[in-house]
Order: sequence, then C-alpha cells, then structure tokens
Amino acid sequence: MAKKSVRDALRLDEVDLSTLDPAGRPIGPGDKREAAEDLAATGTELDALQEALYAENTRSVLLVLQGMDTSGKGGVVRHVVGLVNPQGVHIASFKKPTAAERRRHFLWRIEKALPAKGRIGTFDRSHYEDVLVPRVERLLTAAQLRERYKEINAFERKLADSGVALIKCFLHISPEVQKERLLARLDDPRKNWKYNPADIDVRSKWSKYQDAYTQALKNCSDTPWYAVPSDRKWYRNWAVSRLLLETLRDMNPKFPPPGFDLEAEKARLISNDPLR
Amino acid sequence: MAKKSVRDALRLDEVDLSTLDPAGRPIGPGDKREAAEDLAATGTELDALQEALYAENTRSVLLVLQGMDTSGKGGVVRHVVGLVNPQGVHIASFKKPTAAERRRHFLWRIEKALPAKGRIGTFDRSHYEDVLVPRVERLLTAAQLRERYKEINAFERKLADSGVALIKCFLHISPEVQKERLLARLDDPRKNWKYNPADIDVRSKWSKYQDAYTQALKNCSDTPWYAVPSDRKWYRNWAVSRLLLETLRDMNPKFPPPGFDLEAEKARLISNDPLR
Repeated sequence: MAKKSVRDALRLDEVDLSTLDPAGRPIGPGDKREAAEDLAATGTELDALQEALYAENTRSVLLVLQGMDTSGKGGVVRHVVGLVNPQGVHIASFKKPTAAERRRHFLWRIEKALPAKGRIGTFDRSHYEDVLVPRVERLLTAAQLRERYKEINAFERKLADSGVALIKCFLHISPEVQKERLLARLDDPRKNWKYNPADIDVRSKWSKYQDAYTQALKNCSDTPWYAVPSDRKWYRNWAVSRLLLETLRDMNPKFPPPGFDLEAEKARLISNDPLR
Repeated sequence: MAKKSVRDALRLDEVDLSTLDPAGRPIGPGDKREAAEDLAATGTELDALQEALYAENTRSVLLVLQGMDTSGKGGVVRHVVGLVNPQGVHIASFKKPTAAERRRHFLWRIEKALPAKGRIGTFDRSHYEDVLVPRVERLLTAAQLRERYKEINAFERKLADSGVALIKCFLHISPEVQKERLLARLDDPRKNWKYNPADIDVRSKWSKYQDAYTQALKNCSDTPWYAVPSDRKWYRNWAVSRLLLETLRDMNPKFPPPGFDLEAEKARLISNDPLR
C-alpha cells in the first residue's frame, strides 16, 4: 500500500479553520525524538536535491510562509531552510509596505523578491498580507479584495507555469499557544527584541484574522495551500521539511550533462602544468 | 599563558606567498575528526552570537573569500556560513562584470551587495577580482592599478569605521591540489557542472595570478588579510569558522533592552483574551 504523502495529508481542500486542530498530527512522527531523527535524514536528502536543482538551473522553489505572530515563520527558516546550502537559498521578508512600495502595484515588491532559477526562495510573509490586513482593517472594498484574489491566482499560476514550484504553508496556531509564546518573549531578555507591542493589537482581532485567512485561502487556491499544525514547533518543522522534500523529489532535478568534451578537457588538464 | 588566536596565527603581515604552505596547519586541530568536533561546537556558539548581532541591529560582518578556482569559496559558504541561521546571512557572488556593471565604477556592484545591519555578509569573490584580472591580463596600467588599491583601502576603512567587521580570507591552494580537484570535477558526473574549460586558461597563468594576489594583498592591507591554508578542506573550514567566531566574540553583540514597559505589556497580554 502506498504511504500517504504529507502533501496529501495537509493540503487544504475545504477551508474551515475551525475544524483544523493546531496541535494535531494528521501524519508523521508521534514524538519529538522521532521527528528530530526524521529531520536530520530529510536534511541530507534535501541538501543533495538542492544541489541538483542549483546545477540544473532551470526551475526554482518558492516556500511561502504565512501565519499569525509567533506561528513560527522564523523558526521554519532557521530549522528547515537552514538544512540546505545557504548559497542556494533566497529569503525575503515582507514588512508593512514602505512609501515607495505603496506607490506601486502590491505585487511589485513580490516580483522583485522572486528566487532566481535553481534557488529555493522563502517568503516570510508575502503578498497574502495584502489581502489580510486590508480586509481586517477595512482598507479595501469587497470588490477590490476580490480583484486582488484574482490577481494572486493569476500571478501564482504564471509562476507555476514558468517552473516555480510553490509551497504555500499556513502555519496554524491557537491563541493559547500564541499567548504562551508572547509571554516567553517578555520573560526572556534574549527574546525581548522579538516582541512588538503592536502584536497585541493584532491578537485582539484574532477572529477577524482567522476570517481573513479563510477568505484568502479559499479564494486563492488555484495552487494549493497546506495547513501546518504549528502549536508544536517540532511537528511544524518536521511537516514543512517534508513538504519541501516531497516537492523536490517530484521535481527530480538532474545534474546537467557537460557542455564540453570530458576527455579533451582531461587531456588539457594533464598536459597543463603551470609551474613547468 | 594566553592561547594564540587564529587571527594572530593566520594574519598576513609580510606578504610572501612562496613561504606559505597551502597544506600547513599553523594552529589548530591535528586531524579531521578533531576539526569536525571543533566545527560543531563553533556552530553552536556562532549561532548564538549571530542571533545577538541580528537583534542588536547596528553592526555587521563581511566575510570576503578570495582564492584560485577550487580553493573552496563555495565549500566555506556551505560548511561555515551554513552553520548559522540563513535569515541573518547575505551571500553575494561576483562573476565577470556585466555590461551594466562595466559602465559604473568598479565598486558600484560591491556597495549594492553590502550586508544590512545585523547581517553576516559573504562575498564569493569580490572587488579584488578588479585588481587581479586586470593585472594579469594587462587591462589597466600600473598607475591605474595603484589608484584602485588606494580606492579599495579607503573603501574598506570606511566600512570598518561604519561598523562592518571585515574578514578577508585568501584561500591558499597549491597547483597540484587544484589539478586533483579539477580532475574530480571531470570524473564525477555530479560535479561536471562546476567545471569550466576557461579554468584551465586561468590555471595556465598560475604564477601571474600569485603575483597579482601578492600585489593586491600587500597594497590593500589597511584592514588585514588572513591566509588560510586550503589544500585540506577540513582545515580550511575549521580556520574560517574560527576567524568568524573570534571576530564575533570580539564584537560582543548584545541583545537590546526592550523599548517598551515589560510589566505593562505582560498585563495587557494577560488581560487580552481574543476569544472572550
């Protein structure tokens, strides 16, 4: 019997966040130790696949990380993206748009940050912020939001058609776990810098954000979303590492054949002694 | 007795490449196993220091990697830079200048690639290519080269003064080891893509390049150069990891104090229940 893939297990078909357990483990290891062993093995395989992707130099991966504050976007970058050669990785984080960015189309800054061929791009937040915040803060009309959903679908389809494998992850946490993690940021002097008082304002609009996510995930699903239960950090990291691994296995990148005559080059090299 | 630092041991004072042994081990572990243990411990400490550098957000590091083909610039990126959180790293590689780059001052593309505050920047080749190739290929006059050396010194001093800790590494290999490594690239189908027939042309000018390096290292020494014996990959990686570690220890980055009232925020967080 074929083992179910992590992509199949986590793919969001019906978007109903209320039925998704942020502490769930729909597939995969039962405990932290087993997950750590898996992660190490995944790292070795990812490293090899990423080198082939880089050498092949025709396609790329784009890992999109979305989720409420403390859901672990930075943790995934550190623990999952950190498994591969940094040379082949491109990380972009998107903050509140600057004045220059606001003067352009909302996808302008996104296009600029797309990974080059052969690279694994990672978005810590993304164009989805441009349909989340405006909905919660009522900065756009319903018609304008619908227009953006359409534009995002078209943009992502275009990416997929041009050889960019999208992995869109919604890191799903509970408000209880967010509270614990924010408290930890206040209690640990080494974490204070990660805390932003504005996080509480966003937190106070929790259900509005869940609703905005629901609409965004539902309306921008031409390329699939994965819901990653993120109350347990080890499960979250394990799951994203597997989504990345399954995607790269499917892409099956190949080292390119040499564009030169191997034997002739060997002869040149052997006859060439720069110190003679 | 104070242990000698790796920086002291590898710093180039008198630049005479002919007296430097590319297979030497002037300091540090005696074998590969010991070096691997050291590297793992260094990784843990680097990771913590890099997080503080990132949080502090006022200074940065710039690791400059220069050396002949196969000297291991890419290997250092993978095995040393890969030890820290990729979020805090910025890698730039410099190829032959493009037409757009040639229309600008040679430092234009370099300035654009400088690391942001809090980041560890890594240059895989650098502005030194602009005084190496032109000297070997006689593209610039002696006076023009002297002018560039002066500009590089001034540029690097300005960087140092603005809080960028430079670590300039010359990865020193022997022509015999280069030959072995180029042969390996021809023999292993997974490495063919790394081979470039033009590498042999550069190799045939070995002594001219050693001379160009000597002049560049000698004339651009307002900020120090480190000569990293690179015939042994494990020693090279160990040495660069230590140069980075000693530099970060010296910088002693600190997590910033909170810019908000910790107790007030805790109270806000505890009283704030978004689901109530």
